[in-house]
Amino acid sequence: LDQEAMAAARRRHGILTKPPGALGRLEDLSIWLAGVQGTCPPRPPGRIRVIVIAGDHGIAAAGVSAFPSEVTAQMVANFAAGGAAVNVLARQVGASVRVVDVAVDTPEPTAPGGVDGTAPPERYRIRRASGRIDQDDALTSAEVSAAFAVGRLIADEEIDAGADLLIPGEMGIGNTTAAAAVIGTLLDLEPAEVVGRGTGIDDQRWMIKVAAIRDAMRRARHAGNALSVLRVAGGADLAALAGLLVQAGVRRTPVVLDGVIVCAAALAAETIVPGARQWWIAGSRSPEPAQRFVLNRLGLEPLVDAGLRLGEGTGALLAVPMLLAAQRTLAEMATFDQAGVSSG
Amino acid sequence: LDQEAMAAARRRHGILTKPPGALGRLEDLSIWLAGVQGTCPPRPPGRIRVIVIAGDHGIAAAGVSAFPSEVTAQMVANFAAGGAAVNVLARQVGASVRVVDVAVDTPEPTAPGGVDGTAPPERYRIRRASGRIDQDDALTSAEVSAAFAVGRLIADEEIDAGADLLIPGEMGIGNTTAAAAVIGTLLDLEPAEVVGRGTGIDDQRWMIKVAAIRDAMRRARHAGNALSVLRVAGGADLAALAGLLVQAGVRRTPVVLDGVIVCAAALAAETIVPGARQWWIAGSRSPEPAQRFVLNRLGLEPLVDAGLRLGEGTGALLAVPMLLAAQRTLAEMATFDQAGVSSG
Repeated sequence: LDQEAMAAARRRHGILTKPPGALGRLEDLSIWLAGVQGTCPPRPPGRIRVIVIAGDHGIAAAGVSAFPSEVTAQMVANFAAGGAAVNVLARQVGASVRVVDVAVDTPEPTAPGGVDGTAPPERYRIRRASGRIDQDDALTSAEVSAAFAVGRLIADEEIDAGADLLIPGEMGIGNTTAAAAVIGTLLDLEPAEVVGRGTGIDDQRWMIKVAAIRDAMRRARHAGNALSVLRVAGGADLAALAGLLVQAGVRRTPVVLDGVIVCAAALAAETIVPGARQWWIAGSRSPEPAQRFVLNRLGLEPLVDAGLRLGEGTGALLAVPMLLAAQRTLAEMATFDQAGVSSG
Repeated sequence: LDQEAMAAARRRHGILTKPPGALGRLEDLSIWLAGVQGTCPPRPPGRIRVIVIAGDHGIAAAGVSAFPSEVTAQMVANFAAGGAAVNVLARQVGASVRVVDVAVDTPEPTAPGGVDGTAPPERYRIRRASGRIDQDDALTSAEVSAAFAVGRLIADEEIDAGADLLIPGEMGIGNTTAAAAVIGTLLDLEPAEVVGRGTGIDDQRWMIKVAAIRDAMRRARHAGNALSVLRVAGGADLAALAGLLVQAGVRRTPVVLDGVIVCAAALAAETIVPGARQWWIAGSRSPEPAQRFVLNRLGLEPLVDAGLRLGEGTGALLAVPMLLAAQRTLAEMATFDQAGVSSG
């Protein structure tokens, strides 16, 4: 981050018409944004892009979710039609939504490809559903590398097309199970510590989910590096998200993190490229217990805690107005001198 | 609130394309808004109005603030010029800001009167600064009634002009001292429990502030009803805010509460007219300890906790995007049937 721009932002906060520090976290956020953009005051984001990475998981067959796998493809269609929560919240902040099918359980890709939907969707499709992680690897070595590369490609495409704030989201029945297994493995936690209720499962499915995560973690324990953990216990969606998050940092582009799935990918990304996290902020607190472990490790504190447990990017989008408020106050408020106000 | 509209909102949340409850507090908020408006789905607010009630306090002379009293009038000018934080955050959500001088310490009113600034400002001016509450009453009996009536008048003016979401704010050096004294008295707390750092005072001023609140509370203890507590230990600003909050409920108009000063007025308003609180939601958590006691008593949980301690209405404004997101998701999301998604 640009230390000079951050110092200028701190100085400017001292001369705006308010007591020092009175804008709380808005001040920290605006200083961070100045550092990311390398300019003070920072500009308002001009093109906010939500990228929903969709993928199915073989583990859904174990009965870990309240919803059947077919919902993933149905929701991809819902995203494309603009009817999902992520579309509604994106419209509120002037963001647009792209959906990428990396591993939906259908013969053909369910979403168009590229920034404008004109690229071949096969370019982004890694496989048809990731493997059943309690019994098999989620991906082959070639697949995990390809998925990671697709995530980097997507980030490059978006940033080249002008995106200056990225919101990675996801959709995929069973993906909280894979995310918990990845987080549990990378942070050496117990399965019961990281398992959550996902879309809202009952006690019986919760037991099944704990067992699935336990078995996946047992398989992943000696996988080796973070990419290998994604290969054994994660999936194409998580690997693509990790690649996207790494590349956002390479391209010095800010990111708002969403719920537990994006945070699992963020933990892997930071493990693969230490320091990547400085380009990210945390959007919303998730009720999924595993998210807290990741954010503690990354040193990130969510901006909003409203009990959202939907994913898709909605938790991140709900925090975007706070980032915009931070930018705006630093850029638009009058100084003591300008307003003729005594500075105490 | 309209129970039928709320039941319809609950039912609608069950058929939108998301797991039940997955939007967390957004669901509660949207159900509340449906109840307030008496319709489901609720409409987006069409005219959001911030009303900054400005008033000075004689207690400032005791040295309870880091800023001199002259800042109040200077900030009123800053509000009118659009340079303060409240103006910036209002612009972000499409709200407009009105400033009312009820007791600024200047010979003549510092702000224009009425919804559009064409009414005589004397109509709203109760006196030149409220009394020094550690030694004298803040107001006379006639003045506290007049201030309460002015608050009701303002609410009526705004609602008649089309406002459908009210954001009461405030400005006044010394007003956290009066607010703490009012809250401490009404909830029978210790001075040290309710005193905070205000605009950011040091330990020495904090001691002075505790003593001032202690003396004011001793004087107010036997004042009688809540309006009398506002008369003895409050001020014209707090009484006007209480009147505004009461009248918002009478007119069935929703309100987002701001920080500790507005919350002190809200506590008085709910004491005067029990049930008024059902028309209010809490915007931001304040670092001022007294706010927590009020919100606990009112049964309200702030939507945002970002460490803002500026007042003006900024804490409430920071929460408005969440209310808009709640309205929008309930109104705009596709249902399972519409999107062809399996409901699990």
